[in-house]
Amino acid sequence: MSEISWIGWCLKVDLASIIGLVLAILFVFISISLGDAGVASVKAFLDAPSAMITFGGAFAVSLTMQPDIKTFLNCLKSIKLIMKPVKSNEEEVIKQIIDLSNVARKEGLLALEEAANGQIEDEFIKKGILLIVDGTDPEFVRSILETELECIENRHKGTISFWESLGGMGPAWGMIGTLVGLINMLGNLEDINSVGPNMAVALVTTFYGSILANWICTPVATKLKSNNAVEIMLKEIVVEGLLSIQAGENPRIIEEKLKSFVSPERRKNLTSQQEGGEQ
Amino acid sequence: MSEISWIGWCLKVDLASIIGLVLAILFVFISISLGDAGVASVKAFLDAPSAMITFGGAFAVSLTMQPDIKTFLNCLKSIKLIMKPVKSNEEEVIKQIIDLSNVARKEGLLALEEAANGQIEDEFIKKGILLIVDGTDPEFVRSILETELECIENRHKGTISFWESLGGMGPAWGMIGTLVGLINMLGNLEDINSVGPNMAVALVTTFYGSILANWICTPVATKLKSNNAVEIMLKEIVVEGLLSIQAGENPRIIEEKLKSFVSPERRKNLTSQQEGGEQ
Amino acid sequence: MSEISWIGWCLKVDLASIIGLVLAILFVFISISLGDAGVASVKAFLDAPSAMITFGGAFAVSLTMQPDIKTFLNCLKSIKLIMKPVKSNEEEVIKQIIDLSNVARKEGLLALEEAANGQIEDEFIKKGILLIVDGTDPEFVRSILETELECIENRHKGTISFWESLGGMGPAWGMIGTLVGLINMLGNLEDINSVGPNMAVALVTTFYGSILANWICTPVATKLKSNNAVEIMLKEIVVEGLLSIQAGENPRIIEEKLKSFVSPERRKNLTSQQEGGEQ
Amino acid sequence: MSEISWIGWCLKVDLASIIGLVLAILFVFISISLGDAGVASVKAFLDAPSAMITFGGAFAVSLTMQPDIKTFLNCLKSIKLIMKPVKSNEEEVIKQIIDLSNVARKEGLLALEEAANGQIEDEFIKKGILLIVDGTDPEFVRSILETELECIENRHKGTISFWESLGGMGPAWGMIGTLVGLINMLGNLEDINSVGPNMAVALVTTFYGSILANWICTPVATKLKSNNAVEIMLKEIVVEGLLSIQAGENPRIIEEKLKSFVSPERRKNLTSQQEGGEQ
Amino acid sequence: MSEISWIGWCLKVDLASIIGLVLAILFVFISISLGDAGVASVKAFLDAPSAMITFGGAFAVSLTMQPDIKTFLNCLKSIKLIMKPVKSNEEEVIKQIIDLSNVARKEGLLALEEAANGQIEDEFIKKGILLIVDGTDPEFVRSILETELECIENRHKGTISFWESLGGMGPAWGMIGTLVGLINMLGNLEDINSVGPNMAVALVTTFYGSILANWICTPVATKLKSNNAVEIMLKEIVVEGLLSIQAGENPRIIEEKLKSFVSPERRKNLTSQQEGGEQ
Repeated sequence: MSEISWIGWCLKVDLASIIGLVLAILFVFISISLGDAGVASVKAFLDAPSAMITFGGAFAVSLTMQPDIKTFLNCLKSIKLIMKPVKSNEEEVIKQIIDLSNVARKEGLLALEEAANGQIEDEFIKKGILLIVDGTDPEFVRSILETELECIENRHKGTISFWESLGGMGPAWGMIGTLVGLINMLGNLEDINSVGPNMAVALVTTFYGSILANWICTPVATKLKSNNAVEIMLKEIVVEGLLSIQAGENPRIIEEKLKSFVSPERRKNLTSQQEGGEQ
Repeated sequence: MSEISWIGWCLKVDLASIIGLVLAILFVFISISLGDAGVASVKAFLDAPSAMITFGGAFAVSLTMQPDIKTFLNCLKSIKLIMKPVKSNEEEVIKQIIDLSNVARKEGLLALEEAANGQIEDEFIKKGILLIVDGTDPEFVRSILETELECIENRHKGTISFWESLGGMGPAWGMIGTLVGLINMLGNLEDINSVGPNMAVALVTTFYGSILANWICTPVATKLKSNNAVEIMLKEIVVEGLLSIQAGENPRIIEEKLKSFVSPERRKNLTSQQEGGEQ
Repeated sequence: MSEISWIGWCLKVDLASIIGLVLAILFVFISISLGDAGVASVKAFLDAPSAMITFGGAFAVSLTMQPDIKTFLNCLKSIKLIMKPVKSNEEEVIKQIIDLSNVARKEGLLALEEAANGQIEDEFIKKGILLIVDGTDPEFVRSILETELECIENRHKGTISFWESLGGMGPAWGMIGTLVGLINMLGNLEDINSVGPNMAVALVTTFYGSILANWICTPVATKLKSNNAVEIMLKEIVVEGLLSIQAGENPRIIEEKLKSFVSPERRKNLTSQQEGGEQ
Repeated sequence: MSEISWIGWCLKVDLASIIGLVLAILFVFISISLGDAGVASVKAFLDAPSAMITFGGAFAVSLTMQPDIKTFLNCLKSIKLIMKPVKSNEEEVIKQIIDLSNVARKEGLLALEEAANGQIEDEFIKKGILLIVDGTDPEFVRSILETELECIENRHKGTISFWESLGGMGPAWGMIGTLVGLINMLGNLEDINSVGPNMAVALVTTFYGSILANWICTPVATKLKSNNAVEIMLKEIVVEGLLSIQAGENPRIIEEKLKSFVSPERRKNLTSQQEGGEQ
Repeated sequence: MSEISWIGWCLKVDLASIIGLVLAILFVFISISLGDAGVASVKAFLDAPSAMITFGGAFAVSLTMQPDIKTFLNCLKSIKLIMKPVKSNEEEVIKQIIDLSNVARKEGLLALEEAANGQIEDEFIKKGILLIVDGTDPEFVRSILETELECIENRHKGTISFWESLGGMGPAWGMIGTLVGLINMLGNLEDINSVGPNMAVALVTTFYGSILANWICTPVATKLKSNNAVEIMLKEIVVEGLLSIQAGENPRIIEEKLKSFVSPERRKNLTSQQEGGEQ
């Protein structure tokens, strides 16, 4: 719809995620560079064996925790999800529901099928409409949609707990790495000059573990949790709305009901757009 | 209504919040100044790179956790809310409800509309009254008001969990900063005299992280939680009261019901005022 | 009723609280006095600046967490409550209820009013009886009494969480104090002989924080929680009992019902006293 | 019934508890004896002042947390309970219930009274049978038995939380003792040779705290929790079974119902014994 | 069914568990070997007394926590379960249920018995079918199956909490070992050259504790939790499906209902196979 310009790209990605992650690692980099050796100090923070035991150990046991390798890879890929903005477009969903309720009131429940095939892209709304059009029992429609809601939430929770476990394993394996470094060092103290650098190397694994947990895992888990909350709430609005349509409730009342889900500021916004649309 | 005098200002702000925060930071300042170098010791506690990695890192990943930049800024602004006293004026709300119940009993439910437009400022009570006046089904009034209550609480919880996450990220990034400082220091131990001051600088990030968590984030989160509890309880009183009015219950019984929500001391206070008002 | 003798005083205070707190601080004192300097070692543990940052900081942010200064002071005063023994007199309450049920059975529900004004001191039982005498709907009596129960519990929880927060803030501000001490010390290492004593002073704040948390806050919070559980259980017995009386249940069945709330040993005790009372 | 032989004693005590506790402390003892000074090293781990502040402090504040001294002593005595094996004899209970259901079916509910007085030793089953024989309303029987179940669980939880609190206070007061030792030591560093031994003494309190928590408190609390779960489950089987008997359900169906509570292996075992018993 | 080839073995074991655990310990081994002494460094990490107090202590108190020695051994053996892949074959279960619903619709509920004896291997489905065939009351079928579900989950939770407790006891007893090592060392500081190696030995117990917790216990507990969730969900599908069959619901509707339990991708897969099967 718009040329893929810089602005267009910005609208398509979750700027909060990207800016946050980039800034945080930039601060770490600058902070390291302020050491006595300048930018060369960064070298002291790049240590392959330290990375192996911290990241390797944490990822390996996280693999063990997953049902199979494919699920593990899918969980890793889920990091992309934090780059995709979740538009919490409650207003749009509510308008769709109200439009549908108007159609149902004027042309009957069967007319919803056509509407569903035409405008609606969301698979969840479509499924609900088809159940209604099929004349399914309301109690049953609610039960099917709510089971689906619950299963979506369970799948999301699986991914979230992957990132939380990894965030716990990071510092744990960082500490294991530091213990290995310290024990190796303490067993061979002949060269007293090597104590400082050896200790520095031992601490790098703790540093890696902290970075893994606090730069990646905790933010990703929290973001996914927040995205999940938004998605579940949108779907709850849909369930309430569709059941009201099936019950043949007045569109005005349905609007009132669904507006309780959004904040007062957004609600005003919704009403004005709504009234604009009604002209 | 009153001239903006010193006392007026005190009544308008949350003195507990302000006095607490000011005292705490004052104690830190005095404590620092008691160092060997006197007030000049404060210099050792002001270190821009340390601030960058601790505050920068913590705020950056907190940004990542939020759905978008606007929400992040709103969460930051919510710190102002702890300065605004939340008058837990249950007594006033209960009196309003009882007045409304008297109006409804004497002049009918429709008379509530006028009352609502006149005296009542609270949007939530207004909305409830309009639903009642519209002759909405009681089950439905309850459902709408409770959905709204739940969504208000969810929005509050979003802000509260922002401050809690930030309070967790403060010490975490403080420790990352300290690790960076230690590793840089340990890698270059030639000048043994610089070990002490370097170590001091490394600890400043831990200090910043602790201050961020224990001076700002935890108190703010706890205060907002407590304010939320008061607001939700007031709104629950309103829901119970309005539904009782709609059910045509006796004003005396409604009073008895709502008085269960307040503590015995306040209850007596309520009764006396109430009786005064009835004269 | 009894002369204020030593034994009388012991019966009136919560000896467990007092003995526990006194013994604990005594052990700390003795432990300190066993240092090389004997009792004079205590001096090293008394440091006004350390007290200021640890206690001052912890109390100041705890003030910030409270809705207003008055609530904060009330929470502080609640420490007195752990000195007052909560007699978990389920037996007595059960006997009162059974007596009331006998009165109601023989002389009718209205006769309860007189009984209530005469023997009963507990405000909660009185309120319940008055509601019953007024002929209030049972569903409604339960709802009012349970709302009151919930609000009492909420108020107690507010006080308990004050002590828990303070118990968390103690060690946190103790660590802030220690960091201030360490940073001040590390910045000025010229006099190597002062390192030990300076470090000792820095640790005093951690010591203060631990004492605040583990000598005062955690025990007080736990005690108040336990007292709350006893009080709520007593009130639940009252609610069940009064509703059974209102429903006109057989006093023998009511007794059976309420006896389920107490432990077998106490139950036997109750029965014997009960039978004694019936003679 | 059997001579008090070694095997008999083994069957009467909880071998898991005893072997576990003895082995753990044995390992600690051997580990200490492997120090340079051999068994004499144990001396360094026996320090009365350290024991006083760690155990004394932890037990004293635990006393404060209890409602009265008697409850505190009862909680301490509850450690004996982990020595008594809780036979999770679901099979036996289920067989008793099925026998009772056969009696009730053939000879009527009233015949249960005799059966109860004869075979049954468990007070809880007896109480339930008496309620049934008295012709109590089923809803009411369930309510009485479940209130009792809940109160039993509450009393168990009180004891469990005593051991959990004590397990938290152990390391806390161990740290207070270590801080006292360190501060005393750091204030008097003249004799550099005493630093090592003094530091060792300071660490003994931390050692005592860890032992108290990880050798005694956590295992005892976990064991009591597990015992509680078994006891509650047995009582739930009884409640379900007795209510089914009162409802006059078919013994075969009752058997099916109660068998769901046990694992498949035990279930087979139950069936065979059952059929054996039916021959 | 297939020759026991390498691929066959891979299909039969949980590769994620094995690869994860092997990789993690390999990383630890390589990391140790990178010490100054090369592979010989491993010697410093093998210390029988350290193993005795850390593993011995942790396992001993874990034994104490279990009801009896047999349960303890069973919990230990449960580690094998993480090697067995839990095929989350919701599709297959759903197809079985739909096949059964077709049988029931065409040939009546009694025909299910034959089907159950023929194709079905799962004991839980069999039990449900037999209950239905016996003409058991639906409410009762649900109650029996759900009690069984709950008891299965309770047994799983027992095993999971064993691994969680052991994972907590590992680091705790590692720290006890380190304290023993430090106290022994600090009491005999004459030979300053032995401090480093002694300290290294003291740290080995902390290392063992971390490895026990983060290499074995936490991954095993998490895996078992995830396996439990899959099994419970499969059984919930069975319960819903069987009850729908008993209620005589339309196979198409049952399919729709059960499909809500699986993710959209799998659902498509299910439909295609399903339609293939219907040809």
